[in-house]
Amino acid sequence: MRETVVVAHDGSRKPIQLAVERPLTLYVDRQEIVTLMTLGQEPELLSLGYLLNQGLVPRAEEIESITVDWEVAAAAVRTVQGSVGIGLAERLARRTVTTGCGQGTVFGDWLQRVSPLPPAHDAPGSVPHDALVRLLDVMRRQPSVHRDAGSVHGTALWRGDSMLVHVEDVGRHNAVDTVAGWMAMRAIDGAACWLYTTGRLTSEMVLKAAHLRVPVVISRNGATAMGQDLAEQLELTLIGRANGARYLCYSGAERLRPGPA
Amino acid sequence: MRETVVVAHDGSRKPIQLAVERPLTLYVDRQEIVTLMTLGQEPELLSLGYLLNQGLVPRAEEIESITVDWEVAAAAVRTVQGSVGIGLAERLARRTVTTGCGQGTVFGDWLQRVSPLPPAHDAPGSVPHDALVRLLDVMRRQPSVHRDAGSVHGTALWRGDSMLVHVEDVGRHNAVDTVAGWMAMRAIDGAACWLYTTGRLTSEMVLKAAHLRVPVVISRNGATAMGQDLAEQLELTLIGRANGARYLCYSGAERLRPGPA
Repeated sequence: MRETVVVAHDGSRKPIQLAVERPLTLYVDRQEIVTLMTLGQEPELLSLGYLLNQGLVPRAEEIESITVDWEVAAAAVRTVQGSVGIGLAERLARRTVTTGCGQGTVFGDWLQRVSPLPPAHDAPGSVPHDALVRLLDVMRRQPSVHRDAGSVHGTALWRGDSMLVHVEDVGRHNAVDTVAGWMAMRAIDGAACWLYTTGRLTSEMVLKAAHLRVPVVISRNGATAMGQDLAEQLELTLIGRANGARYLCYSGAERLRPGPA
Repeated sequence: MRETVVVAHDGSRKPIQLAVERPLTLYVDRQEIVTLMTLGQEPELLSLGYLLNQGLVPRAEEIESITVDWEVAAAAVRTVQGSVGIGLAERLARRTVTTGCGQGTVFGDWLQRVSPLPPAHDAPGSVPHDALVRLLDVMRRQPSVHRDAGSVHGTALWRGDSMLVHVEDVGRHNAVDTVAGWMAMRAIDGAACWLYTTGRLTSEMVLKAAHLRVPVVISRNGATAMGQDLAEQLELTLIGRANGARYLCYSGAERLRPGPA
């Protein structure tokens, strides 16, 4: 973050904090892939998660090294097989219509790569009200760029009653991609995890969670119709408008263990 | 919007409205460009604005027709010269690293296409406090998908004390792109306009406004450091955290005519 002085509505000058994003250009075996705007908290994990979620690299094992150099704002990714070996050209061609976020969607390509989670009714009551309330309380108290500067999105991965990782970035997709990179590096099984995001529950967010095998997604934000449709189709428990001890479950409510009115 | 029944924190069932996004695949002279997720309010204008903002089509005059067919979720764009004539292949190659939104940025390519606005100090006091308060009041009262269903972003173009157009979509970029398409169809001069967005004031949002020659951008959300840097560089007046009669000006404060404390 950096401090800047802004002019308020009454003409007074006021110091505030700003989230500082910077460009990071991603190269795979020397080929330029994309320029991401990022807070730069975990550039290697963001690069890894982006490549995995976009399907540009089939699995983390295919990557030999990721070298980030902020001097030139670049993340150089080297693969074991090389770009020809992993079929990067074909993967990029497909990627041009699947660019993630509201503009360009991972939709078509993703559904082919994502299989449904275990049925929600196989884990009845596995999401207790008290655990959700505690998670929301921890996330609210969490020190964050958002609390100090706003204008960023956060994503956290939870397992049982512990938060495994919390990432913030200028876009909700960068944050969840970084979590994906973190999980890939540690071979974390998403099946036992919950994903918290500050972002809206759109189709892409549901698909990314399902791709990570995470059966429960929680947001203080709401869901879109396609987000709900996909969550139902993929047997994912989608919880939104979460605030304090209140929330709405858009799909997979069988996993909920409700609390008091 | 569609109504759906969700399960609340206490297990009760509750009907709510959901924003309904759908995929729209954009074709230019039969070549597939991108699939956008959209509310579908103005698919032709969204298609036009997207192509212009991404620099895939140099100007609206190059477009002969845009035909949207929801049956196949497609927007077919025909250009006057044809794809070879407008150099679509080269433009697409450049676009692959400039995908808009937090992931992939229009940054590099944009700066070459955007020139600074007239200096802010040339229009001292051209943004009176009372006019801003009124705009914020109108936007708050505006009937909207967001008010009923949430999970969408809105953009409005103002000139003087009248709102020219208001668009909502699942992403803040779709909304501003649709406004860009609307302006292009009517050859609206952005110089006399203000742009209101519900989204964050990131570098891409500042660049899109500057590309439209709109000197004043207002959001109820905050700005990022690069958003502020670019706004200063481009002589754009950036107003954020706008709520009721309060707001913060991140750059170009010379245009402000402040109000009471």
